[in-house]
Amino acid sequence: MISENSKRKISESTIRRLSLYYRVLSVLEKENKETVSSKELAKREKLTPAQVRKDLSFFGSFGTRGLGYPVMELKKQIGEILGLNRAWNVAMVGVGNIGSALVGYKEFQRQGFHIKLIFDNDQRKIGSNHKGIMVSDIKNLAKELRDNNIEIVIIAVPSTVAQYIVDDVVSAGIKAILNFAPVNLRVPEDVFLRNENMSMELEYLSFALMNLFEGRLTAK
Amino acid sequence: MISENSKRKISESTIRRLSLYYRVLSVLEKENKETVSSKELAKREKLTPAQVRKDLSFFGSFGTRGLGYPVMELKKQIGEILGLNRAWNVAMVGVGNIGSALVGYKEFQRQGFHIKLIFDNDQRKIGSNHKGIMVSDIKNLAKELRDNNIEIVIIAVPSTVAQYIVDDVVSAGIKAILNFAPVNLRVPEDVFLRNENMSMELEYLSFALMNLFEGRLTAK
Repeated sequence: MISENSKRKISESTIRRLSLYYRVLSVLEKENKETVSSKELAKREKLTPAQVRKDLSFFGSFGTRGLGYPVMELKKQIGEILGLNRAWNVAMVGVGNIGSALVGYKEFQRQGFHIKLIFDNDQRKIGSNHKGIMVSDIKNLAKELRDNNIEIVIIAVPSTVAQYIVDDVVSAGIKAILNFAPVNLRVPEDVFLRNENMSMELEYLSFALMNLFEGRLTAK
Repeated sequence: MISENSKRKISESTIRRLSLYYRVLSVLEKENKETVSSKELAKREKLTPAQVRKDLSFFGSFGTRGLGYPVMELKKQIGEILGLNRAWNVAMVGVGNIGSALVGYKEFQRQGFHIKLIFDNDQRKIGSNHKGIMVSDIKNLAKELRDNNIEIVIIAVPSTVAQYIVDDVVSAGIKAILNFAPVNLRVPEDVFLRNENMSMELEYLSFALMNLFEGRLTAK
């Protein structure tokens, strides 16, 4: 069990690493692995075993020296911290390229993120069935978010209208927003806003290639 | 100008922050802002001004106290480090939900990532025109990557076949791979592999909501 005190202290970078461990553990579970060592978890995510042990010490001392951590149990515990052992009602605003792909992305569903509502302003899309969900008119955004107990909103609209949409979402009392528009959005103090930067990893690769060509960097 | 020595020392987390600055600067450029202070850059990405100044000290001392950094010039310099002031030949393997969305994602093109080839194993897709590009048979993957001077490969195939595809990509001499499959892939020492975890930001939000509900965490 995680203590109240340790929970309070979890930093953003720790949460990030917990996400990574959760993903590795999901893969190991599929491969029917029963235990995993801190060394193996570290290697898979290019961290140090000491860092892994420190992160996982939040969960008490159920890792056994020489045997490692029980995969299923550790996954369940991390899932509990991350809020993945329950279902979340999610709405998608904008079903262009990215929004549409995310609606069909099965991994979200598997993790408990259930897309219940889809919004767009395109009259050709409104009222049509999109991957099993009827597209709602963005004009009714705030009301429908409230009526359907939506907890998380994903925004995948053009940058030019993103702030307007976010204001509407906030007015509906939503406290968690994931934004795909490449723009800086303003939200009140009590709202969690995360920005997904689809280009970031490609930028890392182009940086790495530039340096590889110039003989400055090696991959590992 | 950046020195050879400082370039060698740039860490992964610095590159990550450079990506963030680049994105903020792109937005500021669109808003016709001429200068930006370290304080404003810090605030937009929730960093400290001291961290921003340290990161940007790589670029020499062209930030002026009181005036801040020139937006266009700083964007250009960071773009140079990240390899964004040139064009990259990119191939997409797999045009399911995510792959297909990325092919149509205009932001990549704007940053110099040009998707030149698309591969799939679906006979109904092969030979058809997909957003302006003909879908190639995945059987010819390695040969076509070589023949078309592809530099970066994006993998958006099911987890079960991802390792097989990666081996093929590596055999073609590709040194930079971006993987969307939620699986751990093995590559040789001299290949850069990045994993895009689409669920990570949603996991952060669900963690934040869990804690918000329980009164432990506030958004800012």
